[in-house]
Amino acid sequence: MGETNRAWIFERRPVGDDFDSALEFRERPMPEPAEGQVLVKTLYLSLDPANRRWMAGPTYMPPIPAGVPMFGFVIGRVVASKAAGFAPGDIVGGLGSWSDYCAMGTPGLDKITDMGGLPLAAAMALFRGPGGTAYVGVVDIGLAKAGETFVVSGAAGSVGSLAGQIARNLGCTVIGIAGSAEKCAWLTGDLGFDHAIDYQREDVQARLAELCSKGVDVYFENVGGRVGNAVAANMAKGGRIAVCGLTAQYNDDSAAIGLDLMPIVLNGCTIKGFILYDYLDRLGEATAKLAEWFAEGRITYHADITDGLENALTAFKRLFQPGAAHKGKMMVRVDPSAN
Amino acid sequence: MGETNRAWIFERRPVGDDFDSALEFRERPMPEPAEGQVLVKTLYLSLDPANRRWMAGPTYMPPIPAGVPMFGFVIGRVVASKAAGFAPGDIVGGLGSWSDYCAMGTPGLDKITDMGGLPLAAAMALFRGPGGTAYVGVVDIGLAKAGETFVVSGAAGSVGSLAGQIARNLGCTVIGIAGSAEKCAWLTGDLGFDHAIDYQREDVQARLAELCSKGVDVYFENVGGRVGNAVAANMAKGGRIAVCGLTAQYNDDSAAIGLDLMPIVLNGCTIKGFILYDYLDRLGEATAKLAEWFAEGRITYHADITDGLENALTAFKRLFQPGAAHKGKMMVRVDPSAN
Repeated sequence: MGETNRAWIFERRPVGDDFDSALEFRERPMPEPAEGQVLVKTLYLSLDPANRRWMAGPTYMPPIPAGVPMFGFVIGRVVASKAAGFAPGDIVGGLGSWSDYCAMGTPGLDKITDMGGLPLAAAMALFRGPGGTAYVGVVDIGLAKAGETFVVSGAAGSVGSLAGQIARNLGCTVIGIAGSAEKCAWLTGDLGFDHAIDYQREDVQARLAELCSKGVDVYFENVGGRVGNAVAANMAKGGRIAVCGLTAQYNDDSAAIGLDLMPIVLNGCTIKGFILYDYLDRLGEATAKLAEWFAEGRITYHADITDGLENALTAFKRLFQPGAAHKGKMMVRVDPSAN
Repeated sequence: MGETNRAWIFERRPVGDDFDSALEFRERPMPEPAEGQVLVKTLYLSLDPANRRWMAGPTYMPPIPAGVPMFGFVIGRVVASKAAGFAPGDIVGGLGSWSDYCAMGTPGLDKITDMGGLPLAAAMALFRGPGGTAYVGVVDIGLAKAGETFVVSGAAGSVGSLAGQIARNLGCTVIGIAGSAEKCAWLTGDLGFDHAIDYQREDVQARLAELCSKGVDVYFENVGGRVGNAVAANMAKGGRIAVCGLTAQYNDDSAAIGLDLMPIVLNGCTIKGFILYDYLDRLGEATAKLAEWFAEGRITYHADITDGLENALTAFKRLFQPGAAHKGKMMVRVDPSAN
């Protein structure tokens, strides 16, 4: 093919947030697709808090071996195919790697055929992972209903920002918890959240007690740690907590602050963990509903795009900096031609 | 009435396990039942880990005011009645206090009419609180089914020992976690548990991984802390955790070890807290089923009876001593004539 392939190689499990020594950027041979695989030129790379967890050991995926490109969700264009049903030029999404080119197996590879006029970045920022996780968490796990009080942490993140808007569209009063005044202003100003709490400056537990005297009916938990406990202490009788991530503890293996279950016992609450992989049959409904709301102007997304694969690590580190200016879906435009 | 009334007076909230300075035993005036109340002579006083939690502040009950007799569940005989439907001689159970005599309101007061040949102590040790909590936790919250693996902590306690037997009767493989070799021998020898783990001497997480390679389907959580996390790390995909108490943290307000939710997320588990008060409509079925199993020799209970109200505090403290010899339901025979 003649072209260069560059990749972020996973060298070793990071200690804390020392990602610089965990990953190394270098040239790699062009991958050769095996039978049943396609060769994909990466257009967009998704940066997710969960990537950090994947580095730490086995999850819902096997641990990442040292010496291979770091795993990541990508959207790309097929440039060569040894898989039935896929041809050069197809736009696809799935689990690839932090590379210019990926050889990807076709089970689990989705063809992206119709964006309904939206830019391709929306496939990563509004639909698929973030939108699917937010929709399943609010609707299937949190069982949010009109008139209820809904709280989401990591509210300015890719999943949280969509979850709050989905709950609002279902008729909930929505409170977002985020890590800066700027993010909070975005939540209430642009996204239509009823309230926002800056956990860096405010006492989350006391503020929630003020804002929702009848307690929290649904908590969409993205962060864990102190914020998680502060919300749990304010749950209403019979409240539900949907947990899809715990970003506060990903960089601190040793000192995870667990959840005190006492308020959960006293209020008869339910906590349910979930990963989107177990709810792929719900993606169709989620995508249709998100597209409908978007067309009606009732949901919006923000793609926080960094240009250049070489800048992926710098962008990734921003995900874990409290109060950093990022909001919405963090992603890397790997191919400058991607829209 | 001429008789003496003695009571354990709640003086102040205990620090840690300093119950000696929290409670004081002294004579009290005979209580006067108001309209709608009955005067009850206490036969049995129930000692429960939850009593400790009540001392700490508001729960599902208001906080206990200083200067009044310590709250407790009692079984007693009505000696005077100002309440319709109750007459002297009736045997009743409900929330009373650590006293020879209690004035008790009738909403929430149950008349105990037929013990089916069982001693009255069984009303406290097999039915009502322990049996109801165990039954609801296994059946309604844990959703235990035949062929599943069921783990219970605090397994030699009043609730845990019944919960394990109920799960066994439903066809589960049952593993109990308790704090001494003697308790473990009781679980597997007398109660028919399949396995028992001594958390004082064994690595609970590693031992569970050996005993149930397919993971834990239902965990009946009574203790929290390190034991709770060790079981949570072994949950099967879709596992359920029923939580009715967290005895490990009742005496250590400052350093509660919360539950790491990461395994809950990765395995899509559900945690549900509950208190029996919210499931009183299930007591009828629970009592009928427990009585049936008892008659068939398929469930047994142990009443750990201390004689004399003056010895209540010493007995209560044993509840919180890991490895103490107590097992089953701890209770005080306040009236020596009680059977």
